[in-house]
Amino acid sequence: MAVNLYDVAYDLEKAIRESDEFKSLQQSYSEVNTDPAAKTMFENFRDVQMQLQQKQMMGEEISQEEVEKAQQMVGLVQQHASISKLMENEQRMSMLIGELNKIIMKPLEELYGSMEQ
Amino acid sequence: MAVNLYDVAYDLEKAIRESDEFKSLQQSYSEVNTDPAAKTMFENFRDVQMQLQQKQMMGEEISQEEVEKAQQMVGLVQQHASISKLMENEQRMSMLIGELNKIIMKPLEELYGSMEQ
Ligand SMILES: [Ca+2]
Ligand SMILES: [Ca+2]
Repeated sequence: MAVNLYDVAYDLEKAIRESDEFKSLQQSYSEVNTDPAAKTMFENFRDVQMQLQQKQMMGEEISQEEVEKAQQMVGLVQQHASISKLMENEQRMSMLIGELNKIIMKPLEELYGSMEQ
Repeated sequence: MAVNLYDVAYDLEKAIRESDEFKSLQQSYSEVNTDPAAKTMFENFRDVQMQLQQKQMMGEEISQEEVEKAQQMVGLVQQHASISKLMENEQRMSMLIGELNKIIMKPLEELYGSMEQ
């Protein structure tokens, strides 16, 4: 009677791998990755983003200079066709994963919700 | 050809809901929830845990008094049969979810892993 949970999880993994969202993301990653200038620009952008996020999480002050540097980089990557395509596809993938997680976490959400009352 | 991603996610939701892990968790939640003293003790414990976690995340100092208070509460809840059962079942559920997530996130992990090289 009981379905094997892991079998269903592997089915979902396969469905994600075969989804348009994943294939587009894969395609645009490979485009950025095979263009050394784009790859470097994208990695610098990611590093700066990560540093700012860590500072925020640690409650550290972010300087005006850092904000400007980050904004400058956003401007640069947005003008870069393959990087902005990659970021758009990452956004789509991240929304999809969020929606799937919301479905899967429904039983626990209901359980914790009922506890709170 | 393409499987509907959402259908598979709903299958997984159903499989989680029907799993022994979820049913045991549900059962022990309801036991704690219907015992007012246990419910209060458990909620106090959760509140203290959450406060300490937030302080840690914000990089705030945790006083010796707070550490002792938390340790005292851990001792109390561990001696309480239905609360310790609940915590054990939460641990099992959380491990299961972690394993399922690892399976589902494999495609993205591989993709990001290849980018890093
Ligand atoms: Ca509560
Ligand atoms: Ca890197």
